[in-house]
Parts: sequence; C-alpha cells; structure tokens
Amino acid sequence: MMRCAENPLLTVRDVKPSRPGLCVRGIFNCGACRFGDQILLVCRVAESAGDPRKEVAVPVMKRRGTGLRMELLRLLRSEHPELDFSDGRTVLRKSGARGVVCLTSFSHLRLARSSDGIRFKVDEQPMAFPETEEESWGMEDPRVTRIAGDYYICYTAVSARGPAVGLMRTRDFRRFERLGLIFAPENKDAAIFPARIGGLYYALNRPACPEFGAPQIWICKSPDLVSWGRQRPLFSGAGLGWGGLKVGGGAVPFLTEKGWVEFYHAADARSRYCLGAMLLDRDNPEKVLAWTKEPLLRPEAEYEKRGFFGSAVFTCGCVRDGDGVLLYYGAADDKICRADFSLDEIFRALRH
Amino acid sequence: MMRCAENPLLTVRDVKPSRPGLCVRGIFNCGACRFGDQILLVCRVAESAGDPRKEVAVPVMKRRGTGLRMELLRLLRSEHPELDFSDGRTVLRKSGARGVVCLTSFSHLRLARSSDGIRFKVDEQPMAFPETEEESWGMEDPRVTRIAGDYYICYTAVSARGPAVGLMRTRDFRRFERLGLIFAPENKDAAIFPARIGGLYYALNRPACPEFGAPQIWICKSPDLVSWGRQRPLFSGAGLGWGGLKVGGGAVPFLTEKGWVEFYHAADARSRYCLGAMLLDRDNPEKVLAWTKEPLLRPEAEYEKRGFFGSAVFTCGCVRDGDGVLLYYGAADDKICRADFSLDEIFRALRH
Repeated sequence: MMRCAENPLLTVRDVKPSRPGLCVRGIFNCGACRFGDQILLVCRVAESAGDPRKEVAVPVMKRRGTGLRMELLRLLRSEHPELDFSDGRTVLRKSGARGVVCLTSFSHLRLARSSDGIRFKVDEQPMAFPETEEESWGMEDPRVTRIAGDYYICYTAVSARGPAVGLMRTRDFRRFERLGLIFAPENKDAAIFPARIGGLYYALNRPACPEFGAPQIWICKSPDLVSWGRQRPLFSGAGLGWGGLKVGGGAVPFLTEKGWVEFYHAADARSRYCLGAMLLDRDNPEKVLAWTKEPLLRPEAEYEKRGFFGSAVFTCGCVRDGDGVLLYYGAADDKICRADFSLDEIFRALRH
Repeated sequence: MMRCAENPLLTVRDVKPSRPGLCVRGIFNCGACRFGDQILLVCRVAESAGDPRKEVAVPVMKRRGTGLRMELLRLLRSEHPELDFSDGRTVLRKSGARGVVCLTSFSHLRLARSSDGIRFKVDEQPMAFPETEEESWGMEDPRVTRIAGDYYICYTAVSARGPAVGLMRTRDFRRFERLGLIFAPENKDAAIFPARIGGLYYALNRPACPEFGAPQIWICKSPDLVSWGRQRPLFSGAGLGWGGLKVGGGAVPFLTEKGWVEFYHAADARSRYCLGAMLLDRDNPEKVLAWTKEPLLRPEAEYEKRGFFGSAVFTCGCVRDGDGVLLYYGAADDKICRADFSLDEIFRALRH
C-alpha cells in the first residue's frame, strides 16, 4: 500500500460554499469512477454556519407551503445544558430515548474531476443538493456504480426520520434522475455491484437496529436496480479484533480472478475507523470467502488523525488501474486522500 | 361496530403446543382471507416453557453444524438483577445501548379454519415454523394478500438482528414457498395491497429508527412482489390524540368506492393499543385522504384489557362481507376476536 505523496488531494480550501453565509467544513467520503478519460469523484461536501466553537448553526430543509426551503437551525452551546455536543457529528438529547436532535453539518454532493487521478478540480456548483423531505438533513457518502453506460449513485438520505438510502442515475453527469429511496431507515453504506450475477443485480447495505446489537453488512438482490428484496446478513465483523462496534460496506465491489473484492470500514469502541477488505464468491456474492485479519489502512498519517472527526479513514469508491486499485477515501471526515494497492498484496492479506 | 358475541373466538385452550414441553401462551394477531367457502385465519401462536412467574424459558433456533436446532434459553428472574423483565414481551438489559436480550415467547404461524367466520378449528400442526437464521427468534403478525389465485403472506421475522419482514407464497395452504426478507431490520407491520395500481404493487411497512423519533407507516412499490423500492413516509400519527408513540399498518387494505381503507394500530405512552382507519387514494395510495379522529376500536372488553399484554387490540386482517367488513384482531396479545363494521360507519368516522 502506498499513500499518495500528494495527500490530502482535496481539502475545504478547494471548495466554494454552495451558498453565501455557509462555510465548508469538509470534503470527504467520495464515490469514484472513470468517465471518458477522466477520473470523477462524487464528493460529500459538508457545510454549516456560525462559529462552531460557540454554536451549532446548521441548514435544514423545511416544508413551507408546497415546497422545501432552507432554514438555519441555531443552537448556542451555552444555552442548552440538556444537549450533548460531544460527538462532533450530531447533537443528542442527554436523556430520553429519542436521541438525535440534529446533525452539526449539512451535506450535498459535489463533483471533482481529474486527468491524472491526483490533481482534482472541484466544481463550483453542487452536483446534487437536498430537495426532498427524505433528504432534508443532507445527502452523504455516495457510491457510484457504472452499469451499461449509466451511472447509479447510492447515497445516504438523512432526515429527521433517520438515515435511509437514495438512488439516482445519470448518463452524462449533467442531468440526474432521482429513483427514490431503495432502503427505508435506518440504513446506509449501500453499494450496487457493477454487473448482473446469475441474472440479478446485488447490493450491499447496512441496516441498523440499535436495540438489537451492532450493525452488520447485508446483501440483497434486484431485477431492475430500483426494487430490492432477498435481504440477507453477509458480514458481522464479529471476528475482527479491530472493529466490532460498527461495520459497513465501503467502495463499490470490483471483480478479480479470485472473486469480488470489497473494501469496507469498521470502527472500534473508541470510534477509530479503519479499512479492511473481503473477498466474495464470483458467482454467489452472498458467500464470504475470505477477509483481512488486520486493517489494510489505519488512521496513521497526521491528516487522517486530525480533522473534523479524527482518527477515521472511510472509503466510498476506488478505481481499477492495471494490476492495482486506486482507493479514494475520506480522512478525518474533512479531506479526500488516495492510497494505491496492488491486487497481489490484497490477495495476500485475504487469509481468513 | 359490533363485537362478536362469541368473543374471544380463539384462546390458548384451543391450541395444541407445537412440541412436547412447550406451553401455548397466546394465539393472536392473525391474517385473514377467504379460501374456497371457508374463512382462514393465519394465526400467530406464541409458546414458551417453564413457569413464567419464576423464569423466562424461551425456545430459540441456534446454528448447530449445517442446520438450525431449537434450544431453550432459560433466565431465572431471581438470578438476573441486571435484566429488566417489566415489559412482559421482551427481556432488556438495564444498562448499555444494546437493549434486547431475548423475547419471552417464540411464535410460529398456525392455520385456523371456519365455515361461518365465528367457530374456528385450529390445525394441530404449525402452518409455518421458524427455519432460517433470520427467523430464529420467531415468526409474528402475518398479513395475507390474495393476488391472482396466490396468497402472499408478509410476516415479522425476528432474530437477534432485530425484526425484519419475510414473505411467503402459497396457492393451496399446503405448500409454502419462502421468498426471503423483503425489508431489512428494523421493519415490521408490512401488508401488500391486493391489486396492482398503475402497473405496480404497493406495500405498507413500518421501518423504525429509535434514535431518530417515533416509528411511522411507510409505503413502497414493486414490479414483482419480491423486490421493493420507492420507499416514502405515509402516515406519522402525529395528529392523533390517542397514539403518538407507535403507529403501524394493520389489516391488508381493501378497496371501496371512496378509496383504499386501511385499519391501523397506534399505541399511546402507556402502551395502550387502539385501532383506527385511514382512507388512501384509489389510484395513488401514497395520498392519505382522511383518517379517523377517534379510535374505531379501543381495549374495553375484559378480554381486551386482560391477558398476556393487557389493553391491546391489534389487527392483521379483515374480510369483506357485503356492505361491511369482519375485522379479526388480537386481544391482549393472547386471544383472537372479531368485530364487525359497516362501510357506512367507517366512512362517517373518516373525517380528517
């Protein structure tokens, strides 16, 4: 594995706010694909307003009349002793079961383009901005899958009802068609496999049921990419020494001679996010053939350890390149970085 | 509304345990349909072992070798001060986020048959018994939908991963084909509409996201009944004075001249479950046209107020009968009852 010498490739300084009055807090967790002779990153851009040390000032979309309008939700830290601001990403109620009050930032999707896979230019305008009630708290963590000339983008659609999975489609990265929510809350980290397998499409997803145990990676099937069924648990991470707390799908899986390779994330009890890989059967991806005992990427570089949410590496996409793979990943929830792996080293690490 | 004079129609005394050593704790929450000249109820039968005053002794399916085997989980109340037995339906950890330890009973599905819709005979053997890991804590709350000669049964498949929604199909109520989980956890209370609308099938379902607010009824679409997408929130119950805490779909919706009528349940802060109705647009059931301001059925009769879980009326199915509807419902989580409504009185109550 080689971290790119130019890391971080993108930071908040490379991004223009979507609207006056907003401040970019992070560009991270990007889907990745080749498009013509370019590499495109579909980036999550997180914004908020105000001075974060004193307040949470976060845009939310509110229904007004027949449409949705952006409003700023302001919570001065000093005025809300009943609220817990300690997580950095969410504001929680200190007591009572209904915990989440709001997020601390509002994410949309933004394109970044590159000819060499290293120097990226971020579009000035959002690629997709929240416009439905199900997206009223933001759009996060996109995964891009190319199927027969179309690009399908799964993303986390967050609202006061919780995180769900939305799907959109584009052919040209200019016009985007929203295809609705494919998974109801609570679900996130969905990625569609780039080919039919045995006549059906497959997707990873990560439903959660907090009263019942740690979240796990599930897999399901579809005839048409819009409608999904046959949900099954795939991987619990229970055997991982490094991430029993939270595990979820990462990059879109890619096919190799040995099977499908999936980069996924897992977090430990101290919310340190690392990346591992697993190998799924070529003809039946419901079958996990092997996984890496140790993480393939840990937050070790300074830019991975410090940031909006420290000690986190998190991928939503990679691009094949000869005998290797270019892994794009979010570092500390505010930067985009790249690490290159050879297939050989991935296969060697896939022991279990 | 007329409660059936013969209520309760079925109680634990009418049910033979599925296996030696188990005791039937309830027969309730049944799907209902006409089949030939009979009315069939697909009942939830809950069983456990031991003396419930002293212990929770509940069967669970455990993986042993290549298959699943039933084992008895025993928790003596006196030996577990760290556990909370107060709910009656579940055992919870007193501290820590991962709350549910186990259920207190293990449910399967059992058929009851009647020629007059009042006197039912319960089959001696289960109609469907948990046989997958996703059903390892039980099968609950079935809804039966007839579509073109086939009967589709949605049920809650419970496991240590939480409640999800399974689907099975039968033509003759002898052979049953499992079609997998259509909704990942946490989801329950799913019911499929009995006809295509605008070329697609529709289903109600109730995803939950406990950290984000009260559960709501959602609606989604399918081309083939097995694969579902286009999930949207339908009804929050927020305007109901009588049940803001929990709301979920009930009986399979039926079509009337005014639109689709759906009987649903809602629970208040004291976990008192009542039934209401809503009216959905005939051509676009994502549109709620009206709902009942007051419950149509409250737990008032002695058999509704006292039982395994008191003060609960809960329906999974009804049968049309001339200008009225025969509503079958679970009473206090251990009996099956019937109440008859005329369409006129339902329409009159549908004001909002």
